[in-house]
Amino acid sequence: MSDAVRIVEVGPRDGLQNEKTPIGVEDRVAFVEALVAAGCPVVEVGSFVSPKAVPQMANSDVVLRAVDHHPDHEFHVLVPNEKGYDAARAAGAKVIAVFASASEGFSRANINCSVAESLERFKPVLARAKADGVKVRGYISCVLGCPFDGEVAPAAVVRVADALWREGCYEVSLGDTIGVGTATKARELLRAVAGVMPMQNIGMHFHDTYGQALANLYAGLEEGARVIDAAAGGLGGCPYAPGATGNVATEDVVYMLNGMGIATGIDLDKLAAASREVCAKIGRVPVARVNAALAAKARRTGG
Amino acid sequence: MSDAVRIVEVGPRDGLQNEKTPIGVEDRVAFVEALVAAGCPVVEVGSFVSPKAVPQMANSDVVLRAVDHHPDHEFHVLVPNEKGYDAARAAGAKVIAVFASASEGFSRANINCSVAESLERFKPVLARAKADGVKVRGYISCVLGCPFDGEVAPAAVVRVADALWREGCYEVSLGDTIGVGTATKARELLRAVAGVMPMQNIGMHFHDTYGQALANLYAGLEEGARVIDAAAGGLGGCPYAPGATGNVATEDVVYMLNGMGIATGIDLDKLAAASREVCAKIGRVPVARVNAALAAKARRTGG
Repeated sequence: MSDAVRIVEVGPRDGLQNEKTPIGVEDRVAFVEALVAAGCPVVEVGSFVSPKAVPQMANSDVVLRAVDHHPDHEFHVLVPNEKGYDAARAAGAKVIAVFASASEGFSRANINCSVAESLERFKPVLARAKADGVKVRGYISCVLGCPFDGEVAPAAVVRVADALWREGCYEVSLGDTIGVGTATKARELLRAVAGVMPMQNIGMHFHDTYGQALANLYAGLEEGARVIDAAAGGLGGCPYAPGATGNVATEDVVYMLNGMGIATGIDLDKLAAASREVCAKIGRVPVARVNAALAAKARRTGG
Repeated sequence: MSDAVRIVEVGPRDGLQNEKTPIGVEDRVAFVEALVAAGCPVVEVGSFVSPKAVPQMANSDVVLRAVDHHPDHEFHVLVPNEKGYDAARAAGAKVIAVFASASEGFSRANINCSVAESLERFKPVLARAKADGVKVRGYISCVLGCPFDGEVAPAAVVRVADALWREGCYEVSLGDTIGVGTATKARELLRAVAGVMPMQNIGMHFHDTYGQALANLYAGLEEGARVIDAAAGGLGGCPYAPGATGNVATEDVVYMLNGMGIATGIDLDKLAAASREVCAKIGRVPVARVNAALAAKARRTGG
């Protein structure tokens, strides 16, 4: 297993969007800049959803414009509809992400419509993006379980992935939103989705709520998947399990890949420093175990 | 992957032996009883090393005697030498564990002799155990890295495993003492050791210092290993990285195995409760992510 893996760093968006401690737009920009300096090739920097619904992501246009001077890096923003698309484009977005759910319960709760309706809603956005030469990433939530509906059948995920892929998404990211999945199920799911789209275009977006994310990612890597979403410091939490851990920590992922001889281009020490810096601003300690281990090692060696 | 896995619960020994907050022998017994009530088939309950060196494990004879009334459960104790063996036997030990290191640096630091000398030292213990019908488990430390020597070659682990197996150990547990290993290395190591002894008699004792333990265990399960050492609540820490996480949490392991349809006989909720109880006594929060997730879920549902 020596191919490169592409990490999509989602800390500035998925990691901060539910954060209770306010964080200023300058600090969000500084966080993205630190991630870029650490070598993160792709960073999801914000979201053009309603600032009333998600105040943490207000001013994402400012963040996007501020980091646009890195031509070799890819910056993603979430777009919920055509209005969001207009705003994202006005801020210079070259890659956007749309999001649907694999479960009806979560779709209703999160975006107040059925899964089928959400896919219809994204069609004009995808059509315009195609005409504008804008790349579109598709997210699917609750691929391994739903806080409302419980178990989610792989077939439900496959249907949504197939629709997003056919509509022109260049990549579909499978989100274990509540982190309930385990390795064999993750593996079976990837295999099923790879029946309707190429494995190399499938992203693994696994939360670490039950500590399973790294094992699930390893299972997915063995299956051939090569795109991993992760959040620096393990930022994110889970709105459906307050107090539990959120996104898999990028540090833990990079450590695993380094050990496996898989290139990511990311400097682990710089990444850990970026996490500590942003976490200090919101009064948290990074939940990344690698971060704690590196900090302990530094204390011990005086390094 | 549907075979049963045998979990060796090491919380009362490996989990508590470096714990700074004193915990009374009654509380240690209560912890073991709670683990037994949760269905743990095998519990390592103490250590017959010098109480001057490891005061936390003093009175392990009391713990062993107190839980001896569970004939269907197996209780292990660590034994460093013949004196320890005498004491363990006097307290009724039916299974003992001896320990060597794969690295010279750790062997010197931990037991003040070379690897070869440590193996010689255990020979009389193993001979007496054989004569007495006592089962002996062998531990090997630093199988995937050493805080003193750095990288550890699989061949060094294989030599020690071979010696312990030939001397009569019924099982050899491979310890990633400082938790630096990653999945492919864990897998290669298991494959190498399985060249000199049966895979079914190899234990995986992986620490979670860098968050890798579950991925490493999954890789080992795929390789055919079926014995896992874990500590309730992720007790343990790492003396070589103070502040970092220690043993892989039994909760996280059981959650993974449940999801994979692999039986352990352990009740996850009872196990999590046992962890919370002992952690409260030492003023800690369980680092097990499953524990945090279950607690968050209980708060949310009022359960």
